[in-house]
Amino acid sequence: MRMIDLIEKKRDGLALSKSEIRYFINNYTAGEIPDYQASALLMAIYFNGMNRAETVNLTLAMAESGDMLDLSDITEYAIDKHSSGGVGDKTTLIVLPLVASFNVPIAKMSGRGLGFGGGTLDKLESISGYDVNLSEDAFRRIARESGMVLAGQSKSLAPADGKLYVLRDVTGTVASLPLIAGSIMSKKLAAGAKGIVLDVKLGCGAFMKTLEEARALAKTMARIGVDAGRDMVALLSDMNQPLGVAVGNALEVAEAVRSLRGEGPADIHAHCVEVAAHMLHLAGQGARWTDLAATRAEVDARLRCGGAFEHFRRMVAAHGGDLAQIDDLSRLPQANLRYTYAARENGHIAALLAEKVGWATLALGAGRATKEDEIDHAVGIEVHAKVGDSIAAGDALMTVHANDETSLQAALDELRDAVHYSPAPVEKLPLFYGVIDGRDF
Amino acid sequence: MRMIDLIEKKRDGLALSKSEIRYFINNYTAGEIPDYQASALLMAIYFNGMNRAETVNLTLAMAESGDMLDLSDITEYAIDKHSSGGVGDKTTLIVLPLVASFNVPIAKMSGRGLGFGGGTLDKLESISGYDVNLSEDAFRRIARESGMVLAGQSKSLAPADGKLYVLRDVTGTVASLPLIAGSIMSKKLAAGAKGIVLDVKLGCGAFMKTLEEARALAKTMARIGVDAGRDMVALLSDMNQPLGVAVGNALEVAEAVRSLRGEGPADIHAHCVEVAAHMLHLAGQGARWTDLAATRAEVDARLRCGGAFEHFRRMVAAHGGDLAQIDDLSRLPQANLRYTYAARENGHIAALLAEKVGWATLALGAGRATKEDEIDHAVGIEVHAKVGDSIAAGDALMTVHANDETSLQAALDELRDAVHYSPAPVEKLPLFYGVIDGRDF
Repeated sequence: MRMIDLIEKKRDGLALSKSEIRYFINNYTAGEIPDYQASALLMAIYFNGMNRAETVNLTLAMAESGDMLDLSDITEYAIDKHSSGGVGDKTTLIVLPLVASFNVPIAKMSGRGLGFGGGTLDKLESISGYDVNLSEDAFRRIARESGMVLAGQSKSLAPADGKLYVLRDVTGTVASLPLIAGSIMSKKLAAGAKGIVLDVKLGCGAFMKTLEEARALAKTMARIGVDAGRDMVALLSDMNQPLGVAVGNALEVAEAVRSLRGEGPADIHAHCVEVAAHMLHLAGQGARWTDLAATRAEVDARLRCGGAFEHFRRMVAAHGGDLAQIDDLSRLPQANLRYTYAARENGHIAALLAEKVGWATLALGAGRATKEDEIDHAVGIEVHAKVGDSIAAGDALMTVHANDETSLQAALDELRDAVHYSPAPVEKLPLFYGVIDGRDF
Repeated sequence: MRMIDLIEKKRDGLALSKSEIRYFINNYTAGEIPDYQASALLMAIYFNGMNRAETVNLTLAMAESGDMLDLSDITEYAIDKHSSGGVGDKTTLIVLPLVASFNVPIAKMSGRGLGFGGGTLDKLESISGYDVNLSEDAFRRIARESGMVLAGQSKSLAPADGKLYVLRDVTGTVASLPLIAGSIMSKKLAAGAKGIVLDVKLGCGAFMKTLEEARALAKTMARIGVDAGRDMVALLSDMNQPLGVAVGNALEVAEAVRSLRGEGPADIHAHCVEVAAHMLHLAGQGARWTDLAATRAEVDARLRCGGAFEHFRRMVAAHGGDLAQIDDLSRLPQANLRYTYAARENGHIAALLAEKVGWATLALGAGRATKEDEIDHAVGIEVHAKVGDSIAAGDALMTVHANDETSLQAALDELRDAVHYSPAPVEKLPLFYGVIDGRDF
């Protein structure tokens, strides 16, 4: 088999066989296929796409390029979730203890953020002492002992994806549906889950801007999972405005804690209930939580009464995190400056652009423009109003938490056109636009 | 400027500016843009093409990536020719002395062959002592003193093209019209010609299989030349069957010598007259050879009477070649084995596939499958009949010149389906299918 033949085949619009895809992934990971041939193939895939069989074969080849986690010593049915990422998305911090509180063990690996804000690991590192880097032994021990672990992704998980992602990033081949879906799903498949709930965001603050694009990505990912023998559900959720109030690492940890105490914002509460209910629904495998509406009600009550908070505390303790910061949120990192961003008009909020809030948070230092950037855990933005709310000129719309005047000014520049006003009433944005259930395929 | 932005722009179907193309070519040649980004851009060009302005800008950037030859000390109006290559194409060996015999100086750089057979340089090296590697000083001196020089292409000519060609060859991006046209024309523009006659082959033995493809390539190349201020003519010529009788290095040198003595095959004679007439027509720039038909007649008479042979001898002598081999062709390298390939049917030749004859010649050792292969100058094939000729079973159709039984057998395997027969009369193939004149643009 020769790489040049694979490139020409894909270039000419033909489908690659399972063995051809394995040849590419295995030899590229082993350093035996040069980057310049891999990037030519990636660009041909960008133009000609991949069919369903090619996409699952690519994903499985990437998943199997490293260790395949076996979680059977922790649970018979490992459940996982994945969010395609957005502004103020602290869902994992809330949903995982919530699911664990129903005695469903959670052993999840998560990533860091690149772009707008920090990833789940970055957020957890706002807590002093929290160690995301666990050995596999420690990972399994914590999962068994406290029923829940949330650690950094092992480097031996889907190394092909890591190597290909770096190449795609510099060759204009990121925005390809089979490559995006394969990248996400290869890590999920390698991480040992039997059931996976995907939270695919859409809107100006998400990678997918339209419902159509998000649905296509969700379907592609769900199909990969089903073809690989997993139970799959994909939720299509809104990312036109930030999720919840807090955007920024320590601010989001604090909001997650408040939500787990039953005191969180309504939108993040409802969003997390929905995700958790679908996870339990899958994890029950017909024996429990068969009725989604009843499950949702049970989950809602548990979150509202603070019944999942103890599971979060237990996880923080197991990872070496400072519980005093969780019990007294004022001990989490705090920024020096607080700036109140006021409404300029009377009327109704027509748009509160998640993308602009995201760039503003990045300008404050809450995210990474390049992989080498350090994150400032204290900074961020609180969003006090949402689309559809009525406001008066001078009302506080946002609080900007900054550590210096320069980054504050840069953030305010990004926020200049973030809020759109309307004299007439405006409908609220939905939290969800649809559900794709792998059992329907 | 960032390479990633150029890749994404071309990927999205937008045109690259002159400065963007310069940025790519200059930095890639300097080793400052990695191969994996260059190959991603090449694949995007493969899919989305380049418009007329982009194509000429790419070609000029590649031409100017190294030395731009100035031939004004040799002639006021340098004329050059280029053939897109075919089986039995020894045109350059005949046409150059023919044009030089009209006191039009010729200072040409030529290439080596990869694929079917040797290039012009490989053919000339059949002559003992012929040195194709000249210093620029020697190149100019020979041109001035003997009115004609035909040497190897300097490495400092269009180095960007050399580097890109190697990359295209291993990334499935060879077969792109703007890249093919740019590659050929960048070397022509750098080599100092004011007028260029392109001989674009079409048919099973050529890179371009159809008239439509060949016309598109010819037009693209002619447009590049015109846009770069050159006088351009492109001939579309047949390569469905071999050109002339001889295929193979020493065999072709012998046929060129016979043609220059007025004793060559009719088809190669007529082909060379046409190419030479167009070269003189351009070189005359309106002052002489204004009437193409009269020029053609004058050239035909000159070739027929052997009046150009002395110019070929002079060139061989200037390059250190052994004139005794030219004056007595039996002294050129001779193969050990001669095998007569006989007609299997009575009737008429319907096809004599140049491609198959090409692969057979390669199997004998007359060409290079890889750049490192050594060429056997003695071996090759003589083709005694052409499409439209009537034959009887047992007639000698070809003579195969081989140096061992193994390669002879491999060649005969390639020739198995090379000849198609018809009981009914078959029309001869034309030599030319059309002319594209840059003055019409």
